[in-house]
Amino acid sequence: MTVLDQMKAAVGPKGWTEDSAVIAPHLVEWRGLYKGQTPLMLSPATTDEVSAILRLASESGTRIAVQGGNTGLTCAGVPDQDGQEVLLSLGRMNRIRSVDARDFTLTAEAGVAVATLHQAAAELDRMFPLSLASEGSCMLGGVISTNAGGVNVLRYGSMRELVLGLEVVLPTGEIWNGLRALRKDNTGYDLKQYFIGAEGTLGVVTAAVVKLFPPLRTKCTGFVALPSAEAAIELFGRARDLTGDRLTAFELVPRFALEFVLKHIPTTRDPLTAPAPWYVLMEAAEPLEPLIAAALEDGHATDAVIAQSGEQATALWRLRESISEAQKLEGGSIKHDVSVPVSEMAAFIARASAAVLAVYPDARPVPFGHVGDGNVHFNIQSAAGADKPAFEAHWAAMNRLVHDIVVDMGGSISAEHGIGRLKSVELAHYRPALDLQLMRRIKAAFDPANILNRGRIFESNS
Amino acid sequence: MTVLDQMKAAVGPKGWTEDSAVIAPHLVEWRGLYKGQTPLMLSPATTDEVSAILRLASESGTRIAVQGGNTGLTCAGVPDQDGQEVLLSLGRMNRIRSVDARDFTLTAEAGVAVATLHQAAAELDRMFPLSLASEGSCMLGGVISTNAGGVNVLRYGSMRELVLGLEVVLPTGEIWNGLRALRKDNTGYDLKQYFIGAEGTLGVVTAAVVKLFPPLRTKCTGFVALPSAEAAIELFGRARDLTGDRLTAFELVPRFALEFVLKHIPTTRDPLTAPAPWYVLMEAAEPLEPLIAAALEDGHATDAVIAQSGEQATALWRLRESISEAQKLEGGSIKHDVSVPVSEMAAFIARASAAVLAVYPDARPVPFGHVGDGNVHFNIQSAAGADKPAFEAHWAAMNRLVHDIVVDMGGSISAEHGIGRLKSVELAHYRPALDLQLMRRIKAAFDPANILNRGRIFESNS
Repeated sequence: MTVLDQMKAAVGPKGWTEDSAVIAPHLVEWRGLYKGQTPLMLSPATTDEVSAILRLASESGTRIAVQGGNTGLTCAGVPDQDGQEVLLSLGRMNRIRSVDARDFTLTAEAGVAVATLHQAAAELDRMFPLSLASEGSCMLGGVISTNAGGVNVLRYGSMRELVLGLEVVLPTGEIWNGLRALRKDNTGYDLKQYFIGAEGTLGVVTAAVVKLFPPLRTKCTGFVALPSAEAAIELFGRARDLTGDRLTAFELVPRFALEFVLKHIPTTRDPLTAPAPWYVLMEAAEPLEPLIAAALEDGHATDAVIAQSGEQATALWRLRESISEAQKLEGGSIKHDVSVPVSEMAAFIARASAAVLAVYPDARPVPFGHVGDGNVHFNIQSAAGADKPAFEAHWAAMNRLVHDIVVDMGGSISAEHGIGRLKSVELAHYRPALDLQLMRRIKAAFDPANILNRGRIFESNS
Repeated sequence: MTVLDQMKAAVGPKGWTEDSAVIAPHLVEWRGLYKGQTPLMLSPATTDEVSAILRLASESGTRIAVQGGNTGLTCAGVPDQDGQEVLLSLGRMNRIRSVDARDFTLTAEAGVAVATLHQAAAELDRMFPLSLASEGSCMLGGVISTNAGGVNVLRYGSMRELVLGLEVVLPTGEIWNGLRALRKDNTGYDLKQYFIGAEGTLGVVTAAVVKLFPPLRTKCTGFVALPSAEAAIELFGRARDLTGDRLTAFELVPRFALEFVLKHIPTTRDPLTAPAPWYVLMEAAEPLEPLIAAALEDGHATDAVIAQSGEQATALWRLRESISEAQKLEGGSIKHDVSVPVSEMAAFIARASAAVLAVYPDARPVPFGHVGDGNVHFNIQSAAGADKPAFEAHWAAMNRLVHDIVVDMGGSISAEHGIGRLKSVELAHYRPALDLQLMRRIKAAFDPANILNRGRIFESNS
């Protein structure tokens, strides 16, 4: 019996397919940037089945690609182009094991969609705060393995802050049981931290205990016009203070981005009468009126509107959330998901924009993002009407230009999306040799046969 | 030149001493549970000096004991009894490198006392939230290496949640520079997580960037009498909700503990008129009146007082903070720093108390602690007037009795104090073989010569 046959036997007839039509959507990264091949897709239904698969893989040296909702942005979730990786999909491990309102915890398997977690928590009058564009499709195991962020990081943290316990199958097939619902535990190394954000290279997360919160009973949403990006940084510090640190979102939007949205997204409208160079969309579990009145008074803000209803708040959020879509409709766009210290945000935007324009005078920087996290989606739009493929041919060169500045300012070249295959060369370029060495030692300690998600994070020739 | 001479040369004349009178206080764990010996105490002033020491140590196989403020509770900070460990004190690395109000960050060296961090933040109208009894003496490097908790964990998290960046000297002498002030960074493995809570076994933390917060502008402190420990759990869930998750403390106090305090600590007085079996001291950045009124109404609480001034709040806190001192004055006490899921807290207290009383009918359980963290200081007081050494001779046996119940209920045998030397045997007993194996692999990956804080976390014969 071949190894693949043994794997099929381990998961039973419902747990595998070789049907290329069924497999096809699992082979393509959702933006079409990468397409892989696989001889076999496995869909185990239990942790023991995952264990059996990985044990066989380690013993035989068979490489495994791990996939959740396949919504990642770094080409990490699809199998390799050489067709040697067996695809391990977590989609059938989709049980919510328990929700405990008194503990403010939820225990679920890796294949549960984030939106399903939202619903399960809401049914017990609790809230799971992770919120991101792909929440209908992305799965718990994936958001843990990529340490996902999203729009609520400011108040609730990234996934790392939301995980209390993990169950992980190691590349060797051993099951590590760290599925505990403890708020405090200092018994040696905190092993669960190793797997969070490790992009499936150290083990397959099969289940997790996550934190829940009381739902926010009040919410205030404001859209504020600013004279400069610098003013947003000032306003942010003041907002943290005046709201008693109850800000839940603080999103920077440049005029350019708003214009793209108004142009391309139906039924959107400018909520303010006159254009301003910058905007902030902010939300707090506290009235924003005192803050905004003070900012208007002293000139840090030039105009503002506060949502008077849920519909108005949704309309304001739609402006922010439609930026990526509007950019796509506007034409070519080269993306950077970077972070710098919050205080350097305006300086970074100015410096990086100038550097880009010096080389590409027709390009249009559209820097937007999560001010409170220092996270800028520093996207560069092509000139109006420019050829998209021709513009996007500059992707790697422009990345290098922008990332040089990010690193010089103490920033990160991947704030929330991770490395995957897409940025492994950039990682090797920017991270000091010692960092890479430590990471490789850790990888070897967990995956001695180097079978799990090879070529993600680390360059593929290794 | 001997290795010790080379180490002396590396730190210069101010950086070392062999004077036994100077060294003496650094050799004794502060409760007197462990006394070590050393041929040499090194007090480097810079990261490069730490690097030189560790390089020499790794090359020569010289063991190193790392010490901060020497306030730890697990005998980890003092050198070994065999006198072979060189003592590395971080006390001279005591510079605050920067405080950035706009970033809400502070960068400081390992030897800065936590109280000094509080002051530095306050000068810029910011707040560093870590608060624990030893804050006047304990140092930044130590609270990071032990992932310290304290009374503000409920709102602000343990040290792990408060660290943004680290500078670490590896056992090999290599300097790992992760001193970044980023809120989001997903560029490969998050290496700083490995050093937080690793008790100095993987590297010497020499500096860190920590998060600051806006100061709390309003604070409400209440002391509430409860019919049962179970009622505290109910009240906690309701309190999180009704305060908009703005609880900053929620501390359980049994009547026994209050009586010890009233008996032994001068000028304390019972804030309520009639005794009750349990109390909660709670604090929030939100008025507590509506919550407490509702609890009194439906019987979850039987009496309550809300502090009407800062002095009254201080007096209430003094009742809680004097428990350990009062226990000491009352006689022998065997301690457990454990955690269970929040919802299991009352059940754990009942079960563990019954188990202890079955074996030691005269013992007096005094379980108190941080309800919101599921963290019980499950202390057992000897019978009134009992011989202290005779009672404390039961320490290990009683620990085992209590820890068996903790582990059976999915809890942790060291919620916030860590393992050190004190609990390494317990760790080896309770953690699954796979966990210990993974930890040893990590230790070997970072400290191949096994020279750094050997015998902490892992049993000393290895």
